[in-house]
Amino acid sequence: MSDAKTYLDPAIAARLKRTSDGLVAAIVQEHGTGDVLMLAWMDEEALHRTLTTGRATYWSRSRGEYWVKGATSGHHQHVRKVALDCDGDALLLTVDQTGAACHTGTHTCFTDELPVEAS
Amino acid sequence: MSDAKTYLDPAIAARLKRTSDGLVAAIVQEHGTGDVLMLAWMDEEALHRTLTTGRATYWSRSRGEYWVKGATSGHHQHVRKVALDCDGDALLLTVDQTGAACHTGTHTCFTDELPVEAS
Repeated sequence: MSDAKTYLDPAIAARLKRTSDGLVAAIVQEHGTGDVLMLAWMDEEALHRTLTTGRATYWSRSRGEYWVKGATSGHHQHVRKVALDCDGDALLLTVDQTGAACHTGTHTCFTDELPVEAS
Repeated sequence: MSDAKTYLDPAIAARLKRTSDGLVAAIVQEHGTGDVLMLAWMDEEALHRTLTTGRATYWSRSRGEYWVKGATSGHHQHVRKVALDCDGDALLLTVDQTGAACHTGTHTCFTDELPVEAS
């Protein structure tokens, strides 16, 4: 988590329950197809920027910086809706995705299927 | 994270990138509707139990114990598919959901919509 001051609405901030590293999980679902594209992380300021710009903005755990999706790749996410879950530790973004959501070039990041033995 | 020994396939365990509290995020999507129902957390043993029983099993961060979804409520999740994402820190479960997914009684946990100012 950044030490940057945040301008997130305090009423929203009070409803967030962050992990021990100060983040909430952000699930990204594509409008239209319903495909779950990716999971990213937000601190309060990333959520503030997302809500006020309509462009999905995350906190990169690996790079330690804010990250506007598509700023490098052009694969933007236009945010239609943001919903918080019942216990405040996850967000669901509904987006219009330009191009591939995954940095590997695939439509979604969830391409590695694991074997379910009993079904 | 529990200190319990896990029997998760080491080849799968090696692909997981856990948060600082030893967990991976598990997104739960309903088969058929495509609705994102909830987000829960798994350690290696929870994933092992899910893959080998076909019943969604999580690690409860608040209670510090394993949790078979529906064991108390009857609202089971029959797991059809499990996919790992490209960087190993999130799972996507495709499930058949019995009853309400959310402990509050609603179909999904994502009922608290936040205002997106620019769209």
